[in-house]
Amino acid sequence: MNNQKLVRNIVPAEPGFDEPNAALLAEDFRGFLPLPAHLDSHFEEALRHVLQNPGSLVRPRLVMQVATAYGLDATHANSLAFALEYFHTASLIFDDLPCMDNASHRRGAPCVHLAFGEPGAILSALALINRAYALTWQALSGCARDTQLQVMAYLEQRLGVEGLLNGQSLDLHYAKLPHNRETTERIAHGKTVSLIRLTLVMPAMLAGASAREIQLLERIATCWGLGYQIVDDLKDVLQCFSETGKSVARDVLLGRPNIAAAIGVCGAVERLNSLIRMGDLTLSRLLIIKPSLSFLGKLRADLQAELVRVTENACEMNPRAQA
Amino acid sequence: MNNQKLVRNIVPAEPGFDEPNAALLAEDFRGFLPLPAHLDSHFEEALRHVLQNPGSLVRPRLVMQVATAYGLDATHANSLAFALEYFHTASLIFDDLPCMDNASHRRGAPCVHLAFGEPGAILSALALINRAYALTWQALSGCARDTQLQVMAYLEQRLGVEGLLNGQSLDLHYAKLPHNRETTERIAHGKTVSLIRLTLVMPAMLAGASAREIQLLERIATCWGLGYQIVDDLKDVLQCFSETGKSVARDVLLGRPNIAAAIGVCGAVERLNSLIRMGDLTLSRLLIIKPSLSFLGKLRADLQAELVRVTENACEMNPRAQA
Repeated sequence: MNNQKLVRNIVPAEPGFDEPNAALLAEDFRGFLPLPAHLDSHFEEALRHVLQNPGSLVRPRLVMQVATAYGLDATHANSLAFALEYFHTASLIFDDLPCMDNASHRRGAPCVHLAFGEPGAILSALALINRAYALTWQALSGCARDTQLQVMAYLEQRLGVEGLLNGQSLDLHYAKLPHNRETTERIAHGKTVSLIRLTLVMPAMLAGASAREIQLLERIATCWGLGYQIVDDLKDVLQCFSETGKSVARDVLLGRPNIAAAIGVCGAVERLNSLIRMGDLTLSRLLIIKPSLSFLGKLRADLQAELVRVTENACEMNPRAQA
Repeated sequence: MNNQKLVRNIVPAEPGFDEPNAALLAEDFRGFLPLPAHLDSHFEEALRHVLQNPGSLVRPRLVMQVATAYGLDATHANSLAFALEYFHTASLIFDDLPCMDNASHRRGAPCVHLAFGEPGAILSALALINRAYALTWQALSGCARDTQLQVMAYLEQRLGVEGLLNGQSLDLHYAKLPHNRETTERIAHGKTVSLIRLTLVMPAMLAGASAREIQLLERIATCWGLGYQIVDDLKDVLQCFSETGKSVARDVLLGRPNIAAAIGVCGAVERLNSLIRMGDLTLSRLLIIKPSLSFLGKLRADLQAELVRVTENACEMNPRAQA
């Protein structure tokens, strides 16, 4: 199948947008969890390893952009940005454990449990979570009481038994579930979309966005969250270690959900295009209400670019692509 | 050594105090984490197992008693009480994992990881933590902003890298540390005292207690927290499974800190008596300022009763007591 045809419905990216400086973001990623003196040395080493490997920091970038669009002050926005990044990082550390995905690499480095043992990994992840809640609190400290309760309830739902945690449990027991689009998307909705929803919705909610804006942001987060999961699934099936910096082709091996494995690479790409179209429609409605969110076009363009990069020549060259 | 002599400095318990009803507490322990429909069945089973085995619920009892003494409203007190119990329960689930204490039983039932797998245990513990933060938030919703920030910072310190987590890491690497009172108490200060401090201090802080009251409550929490850890250590060394409902005599086997193993049973009992005396002195000062906290005498009497029960005849009859 021709990839040009597969991506034909994707519109061009928005014009350039000044993103937060990458080096500053990495510095903040380290700095928002200050390590006190006299920590147990094993714990400290594991924490330093985590903090020195920040990954792409796409979530804090987005939080700060949404916050800017809504006029939220930078201090509160920054606290929220790294709170969500810490929640995300903690979830990855847990996912990588031997009893979960048993991964070897993450963010281009050995997984924490391999470098510093499972207790080091678990305690580091819990330290991130503890800090993340404190940062969220700080981000909320300037808000009206009703907003605080609304935002906290939203956070609890996305991270808790109804959101991320249930998604992770379904993910681990995928072998016993029907291998189809509905199942993989139900899992992605819990595991992946939950944090994207928090990233786009929380800063807007904190700034007092309307119910309609929240609804549209939620829909965009769902389309693009599922979309990014499809890109990840395609990467797992099609790419090699050097390109992704993490263990790959593991999903089928471990019986983990992968939409490209469940319905084929081309079906997955078609579904991604459909999600991008739904996202475009929703974004156009949102931008009428809130033009300052136009930078979101960049996220959508990145999704398109990832899709093009991942699928380039894959359908013709890689035998696994025919799965 | 004569146990009567060891406990000679312990004064009688305070007169009877109406404690919260045990059955209601157990119901609240289940009810404060409502399980939505359509959870992954593995996750749901693990969570139900956790919620059906509430343990002694000593922490929520205490929170509610301190809250009553300070005139905190019952709804906020109840949220805080089960928030702290959920943090505590989550820490036990993590502690029991194969990579940590590798325990087999907890609260008279098989450990979650043995009954429902390690992922089930980890996800259940994270669900408790997520819910605990939400409940803390609810408990704080009626407070002044400064109080909210003060209480949250206190919670973060006790649970985070400076508190519980560092204590747990030191605990796991005890083999490489000097086996003496200073080390075992440093670890207990992180692992055990942190949550006792939260239990006694947070409701008082939330109700606007003075800095002096907080200071005295902290000191009492430290004396009794270290004291209860000594009782636990003595139990580990002296008692059998049927009495404690959890795997015992494991500390030495696993190289875990145990003050009774480090300095001997009689030395541990003497240290406990000294802590009880310091606690008594502090409590007498506190009760001059806040007579409504007199129920704390019950906690202190329980500690005494536990000590008597654990050491009864042990020095003479149990060969391990001579360690």
